[in-house]
Amino acid sequence: MRINQAPSHRWDRWLVRRLFQAIGPAPIRVALGGGDGFVPAGISPVATVRIRDRRTLAQLVLDPEIGFGEAYAEGRIQVEGDFVRFLEVVYTSIGNTRRPFWYSGVVSKWMDWLQNNTLRGSLANIHRHYDLGNDFYKLWLDHEMVYTCAYFPSSSATLEEAQIAKMDHVCRKLQLQPGETVVEAGCGWGALAMHMARHYGVLVKAFNISKEQIFYARRRAVEIGISDRVEFIEDDYRNVSGKFDAFVSVGMLEHVGLSHYRELGNVIHRTIGDSGRGLLHFIGRNYHEEFSRWIRKRIFPGAYAPALAEAMRVLEPWDYSVLDVENLRLHYAKTLEHWLDRFERCSHQVAAMYGDWFQRAWRLYLAGSIAAFRTGRLQLFQVLFAGSQCREFPWTRAHLYTDAQSVESRPRWTHAMS
Amino acid sequence: MRINQAPSHRWDRWLVRRLFQAIGPAPIRVALGGGDGFVPAGISPVATVRIRDRRTLAQLVLDPEIGFGEAYAEGRIQVEGDFVRFLEVVYTSIGNTRRPFWYSGVVSKWMDWLQNNTLRGSLANIHRHYDLGNDFYKLWLDHEMVYTCAYFPSSSATLEEAQIAKMDHVCRKLQLQPGETVVEAGCGWGALAMHMARHYGVLVKAFNISKEQIFYARRRAVEIGISDRVEFIEDDYRNVSGKFDAFVSVGMLEHVGLSHYRELGNVIHRTIGDSGRGLLHFIGRNYHEEFSRWIRKRIFPGAYAPALAEAMRVLEPWDYSVLDVENLRLHYAKTLEHWLDRFERCSHQVAAMYGDWFQRAWRLYLAGSIAAFRTGRLQLFQVLFAGSQCREFPWTRAHLYTDAQSVESRPRWTHAMS
Repeated sequence: MRINQAPSHRWDRWLVRRLFQAIGPAPIRVALGGGDGFVPAGISPVATVRIRDRRTLAQLVLDPEIGFGEAYAEGRIQVEGDFVRFLEVVYTSIGNTRRPFWYSGVVSKWMDWLQNNTLRGSLANIHRHYDLGNDFYKLWLDHEMVYTCAYFPSSSATLEEAQIAKMDHVCRKLQLQPGETVVEAGCGWGALAMHMARHYGVLVKAFNISKEQIFYARRRAVEIGISDRVEFIEDDYRNVSGKFDAFVSVGMLEHVGLSHYRELGNVIHRTIGDSGRGLLHFIGRNYHEEFSRWIRKRIFPGAYAPALAEAMRVLEPWDYSVLDVENLRLHYAKTLEHWLDRFERCSHQVAAMYGDWFQRAWRLYLAGSIAAFRTGRLQLFQVLFAGSQCREFPWTRAHLYTDAQSVESRPRWTHAMS
Repeated sequence: MRINQAPSHRWDRWLVRRLFQAIGPAPIRVALGGGDGFVPAGISPVATVRIRDRRTLAQLVLDPEIGFGEAYAEGRIQVEGDFVRFLEVVYTSIGNTRRPFWYSGVVSKWMDWLQNNTLRGSLANIHRHYDLGNDFYKLWLDHEMVYTCAYFPSSSATLEEAQIAKMDHVCRKLQLQPGETVVEAGCGWGALAMHMARHYGVLVKAFNISKEQIFYARRRAVEIGISDRVEFIEDDYRNVSGKFDAFVSVGMLEHVGLSHYRELGNVIHRTIGDSGRGLLHFIGRNYHEEFSRWIRKRIFPGAYAPALAEAMRVLEPWDYSVLDVENLRLHYAKTLEHWLDRFERCSHQVAAMYGDWFQRAWRLYLAGSIAAFRTGRLQLFQVLFAGSQCREFPWTRAHLYTDAQSVESRPRWTHAMS
C-alpha cells in the first residue's frame, strides 16, 4: 500500500504500512508523536489518530484490538476529530479486511475459560461492571436508571421518554394482564420490574446478582410503595424457582455465555412451562463472532453477543415458538449517543471519582458501542416466544403501535383456537 | 393402557393397544369395520376413526404416518366427526409421545436422497405439485391465485382481502420505492410480482420452474398491461442473474432443501449485494424435524420446513442483518380453513377430474396442514433482512400498521445514519 506523506524514519514507515495492512485502508490519518501523519493514498481522512511513540505503534500493529484499547485508556493514543466517526470507519475497514490475528482465537478461548460464567464466575464478572457504584451510573443514565437499549417511537424522543417507551414495548409484546405473575432474570436497578408492577398490575419476582443494583432497587420499590408487588432477589438466574405466566430478560443473555444457554432454557421451562410466554432482549450478531477482547478484558468480563441462530439454543429444546423478532440496533446507537453525551458532560467528575484511565476507557467503550451498532457489527434483538400450549396471542402486531399506553385501554386478546 | 369397550378378537385388541402406544392416549375412538370402537379409558373422544380391516390396522401400527395417509387416500380409513379436530388431537398426542419409529429416520434420509433438490430434482419435484393444472387450483384458491399464507388484518377479512393484505404487508416490510428493481424467486402464478409492479411502481424479474404457473403469469401480465414491468422467467433460482434493490421469496424456501441454503444465500448476495434488502416467507419449525414422510411421498416431494436457526444459514455467510421476524402461523391455519372450505364445496368436481384417491389425499393434506399450524407443529416465518451497507430502513415498524395502502401515502424513509 502507498502511504502519502512519508514518515521520518523507515521503521515508522514500515510499522504504519503494517498497521494499514492489518486494519485495511481506513480513511484515517495516523500521526506519530507531534508529526503530520500518514493517510492511505487517495483517501480523505475523517480524523487523526495520534500515537505517542514507536512502542505504542508497534503494540498496535501486533494486536490492534487490545493495543488500541490499552493505549487509548492510558493516554498514549489520542484521536483528533469525531471519535465515533473514527471508530466507525475503522470498524468498517476491519470488517471488510477480515484477517483475524493468528493468536486472537487462542487468547479468546483462554479468556472464555478464565471468565466462564459459572455460578461463581458470573458473580465476579457481574460485580466488576455493575457494582462500580450507583453514583457513577446516576451521572449519565436516565432518571429510572435503565442501562439497556431504549426504544425511540420517534427519533426526537428524549432518553427518558424512550426508556419508558421501551418498557411499555416489552410489556405490550408480552401482553401482560393484571394479576399475572412475571419472573425477570437480570433486573438491573429494577426499573422494568417496577414499571410492570405499577402500570400493568402484575406480580414480579426479579433476580440479579449485582449487590449494588439490588440494594438500589429494593429501596426504590419501598419509596414508591410497590414492595408488596415486586420482590427483588439477589441470586443467579439458575436458582430461579416458582411458576410464572411470563418470563422476561432484558440485557442479561450477553452475560450468560453460549455454553450456558441450555441451562437458561431449562430455567425458562421450569418457570413458565409450555403455557407461558417470554421475551429475550439482547445484543446480538449477524454471525458467530467473539466479543472484543479488550471489552472483555476491561469492561464486560465473560460477555458474548450471540448470532440469532445461537440464541435459538435457549428455546429449541423446549419447543418454544418464536412469535416476533425485532432488531433495534439503531435505537441502541441512539441510546448510547445520549449516554456518551451525558458522560462527556461529567467526564471531569468521572475522572475525579475513578481516575483518568477509567474515564478514557469508558469513553472508548461507549463510543465504540455506538460505532458497532451503527455499522452493524452489533445488533439488538428482542425475541418474543411462547410455549406449545400457549393458545392466546394477538392476531397481529398492530396493538403495539396504537397510542393506548394504559392498562385499561390495552387490546383484548384474540383466541387463537376458534 | 386400558381400552374401554373391548374388541371382539384378541388380535384386534392387541393391535389397538399398540396403536395407542404409538400415538399416545389421544381422545379418539378407534373402530374396526362396522364395530363400536375403542377409546382410551377415561377419555372423551372428539371423533371416530373407522378402519376397514385388520390389515389396515396392522399397517397403521407399523407406521402411523405413512399408514394413515395411504389408507385414508385409498378409502380404507374414514373419520367420523370433525376431521381437522381429529388430526389436531392426534398431532398433539404424538407430539407429547415423541417416540419416532426406528426406521422413520432411515426412510427419511433415503427420501431426501431420492428427492434431492438439485437443478434436475427440483424440476421433477415442482412439476409434480404445481403443474397439476391451473384449472384445479382455480377451483379453491382466491381470484389472484395466491398459494401461500395470507395475512388477515382482522380475523373477519375475506380470503381475497387477506391475500392482498399479505402482498401489501410484504411490500411495506421491504419498503419498496417506485423505480426500484426487485427479483422474486419462486413466483407461483405471479400475483405478488404483478402486485409489486402495479401498486409499488417497481420493476420485477420473477423466477419459477413450474411451466403451468409461468404460462398463466405471463398471460395475466399481458392481460392487465404490465408485461413491460414484470418479466416472468422459467428458470431455477440458482440461475438468477442481474443486480436488484430487493430480493423476495414467498413460499419457496420449503422447496430449496437444507443442503442448498448456502447456494440460495450466494444467489441473494449475487443479486442484491451488501446494499440491498430482502424477505423470506416460509413454513418453519420450532426445531429441526423432517417433513411428514407421507406429505413428501404424495404431496410435496423434496419439501423441508426449517427451524429459524437453520434458515439463518442462508443469511449468516453474507453478514445480512435480520431486521424483523414475524410468525404468521395462525394466519396460515385460517388461510387453509378457507381453502379446505372451498375445496370441500367442489370435491365432487375434483374427484371427477383426478379421481377419488386424489380428492381424499388432498383433503388430508389441507386438513392436516390446518391442524399442524394450529397445534404449532408448523410455523410460518416472514424474515426481513438487509445487507451490511443498507443504511436506510424505518425507525420503527409502526408504518406497517397505518391505514395507508397506496404508493403515494407510504411513509418517508428515515435515514439511519444521522
